[in-house]
Amino acid sequence: MNDLILALDFGGTKLSAAVINRDALGDERPQWPALRREFTPADADAAYELAAMLRLARELLAERSPAAVGVSFGGPVDFPRGLVRLSHHVRGWENVPLRDLMAREFGCPAFVDNDANVAALGEHRFGAGRGVDDLMYITVSTGVGGGWILGGRPWRGHAGMAGEIGHTVVDPAGPLCLCGKRGCVERLASGPYMAADWEEGRGRKGEEEKGSGGMTGRDVAVAAAAGDPVAKEILLRGARAMGVGIGNAANLVNPQRFILGGGVTKAGAIWWEEVRRAARATALPEVAFDVVPAMLGDDAPLWGAVALTEQL
Amino acid sequence: MNDLILALDFGGTKLSAAVINRDALGDERPQWPALRREFTPADADAAYELAAMLRLARELLAERSPAAVGVSFGGPVDFPRGLVRLSHHVRGWENVPLRDLMAREFGCPAFVDNDANVAALGEHRFGAGRGVDDLMYITVSTGVGGGWILGGRPWRGHAGMAGEIGHTVVDPAGPLCLCGKRGCVERLASGPYMAADWEEGRGRKGEEEKGSGGMTGRDVAVAAAAGDPVAKEILLRGARAMGVGIGNAANLVNPQRFILGGGVTKAGAIWWEEVRRAARATALPEVAFDVVPAMLGDDAPLWGAVALTEQL
Repeated sequence: MNDLILALDFGGTKLSAAVINRDALGDERPQWPALRREFTPADADAAYELAAMLRLARELLAERSPAAVGVSFGGPVDFPRGLVRLSHHVRGWENVPLRDLMAREFGCPAFVDNDANVAALGEHRFGAGRGVDDLMYITVSTGVGGGWILGGRPWRGHAGMAGEIGHTVVDPAGPLCLCGKRGCVERLASGPYMAADWEEGRGRKGEEEKGSGGMTGRDVAVAAAAGDPVAKEILLRGARAMGVGIGNAANLVNPQRFILGGGVTKAGAIWWEEVRRAARATALPEVAFDVVPAMLGDDAPLWGAVALTEQL
Repeated sequence: MNDLILALDFGGTKLSAAVINRDALGDERPQWPALRREFTPADADAAYELAAMLRLARELLAERSPAAVGVSFGGPVDFPRGLVRLSHHVRGWENVPLRDLMAREFGCPAFVDNDANVAALGEHRFGAGRGVDDLMYITVSTGVGGGWILGGRPWRGHAGMAGEIGHTVVDPAGPLCLCGKRGCVERLASGPYMAADWEEGRGRKGEEEKGSGGMTGRDVAVAAAAGDPVAKEILLRGARAMGVGIGNAANLVNPQRFILGGGVTKAGAIWWEEVRRAARATALPEVAFDVVPAMLGDDAPLWGAVALTEQL
């Protein structure tokens, strides 16, 4: 009997594909028996990405047929209809029926969801959320997004839009975000915004365009660790915003655990301590939860794509 | 066959009891065939309330036995264990096993949950949430609390604490709340706090203790409608806080509808417009929802208590 699962991750700048046999899946996360990754050129569009991904998949499958395909997509997805709504990074993804396309291509059931929901599922099934029925996974990276597991199953919201913790407002007097609001979590806590604020704080504004100085959230964290007071204040402000967002989410939904992944979470103990402090201070005393690092790293969407095929 | 449902509401300052036959329950809300209400004296404790409620129930039942008892309690409840955690208004409710007590008393299954969850269920079953699977009910009254229906069922959170929208922070630079935080929704949007702010704004502070001038949220709304600029600003600030809280909740959980009840929601169009405007401005454009008035008024917990007996 064929129990091969094909897991695909459309990651914005990177495509990943893996195959694994269902028999190899216990509660522990196994090693990938076969995995391919490929960076996409800056001018890649949806057609390019689709063709490249199908090539990776066929190389991995080597004439075998999968029993199911799970797909993580880095952008909004209409899960019930299996439809990619769009990509914020790559042209041409508007309303692509990715689920049906994959099902036809591989002649088996296919499942498509957005990367935050899929990563939440991955951490729940194989990572920091094993045995935890009610959790929120949050990625703190170039953006801030999230996915829920409630009652042991993904909670996607009425129209698949749940989990947008990055666009909750935690400081109406805060700086303006591209989304048009002031003081949303993403504006304060995401890597690129922290980098832009640091460049501005160091007086680089004017010399070169804001945020274009090549600085990243990682540079802010490194400088903060080295004692740069401006970098430290910006990093802590971001951590505080993330913590207030988590505390608010805890009061509203009362999950057992928040799992944080993404580049910014590598900023070290100073960042984690402030996130946890602000989250605890924001939540009611009787609202209990913990805040822990993700375990699956960049592979969370791929592992989640595997778990997605186990749903139903 | 006996299909009599006994519905009880322990409301802080008021006890309500009703009986209704299951046959009378369609999709439309019927009239109560039999209903009793009683105000409790200020010095009432848990023992007094229990005795008074049992008396009301026995008068209504008149020797008949109910098939099930649904109970709404105005305070935190451990739903799976059927345990009242405490009342913020009435002494002696700490860890009272109200579900088992009722089940023993009436010899039938009993169900106990907190008033916000129960009211959400009532509006879902009989009121403004009929046909809406994903909703949040919010009461804006002496406090601000909420309850979720997700996927057609109550979502209580990992430990029954979900729905605490009143204690989400929407302005970290805002005024201090009794809960120890600044700028939580309840501090800005609840009736007593708005009344206290208005008295302070009118320069009454010092003459008498803050908030003790006998003013209520209703007085603020009346004064705002009559053109008092301080009252209007306080009312709008409260509405804005409620709206930001709703917009944040929409981004996080993506329900289809928010149903608002409680005294403050009677403040008129100026209040509703600002709530809706702020909620819409806070939520992402692609996060759709509506914000509507509750339909069941003070009876929402009683109708929810009926619906609670239909769960499982």
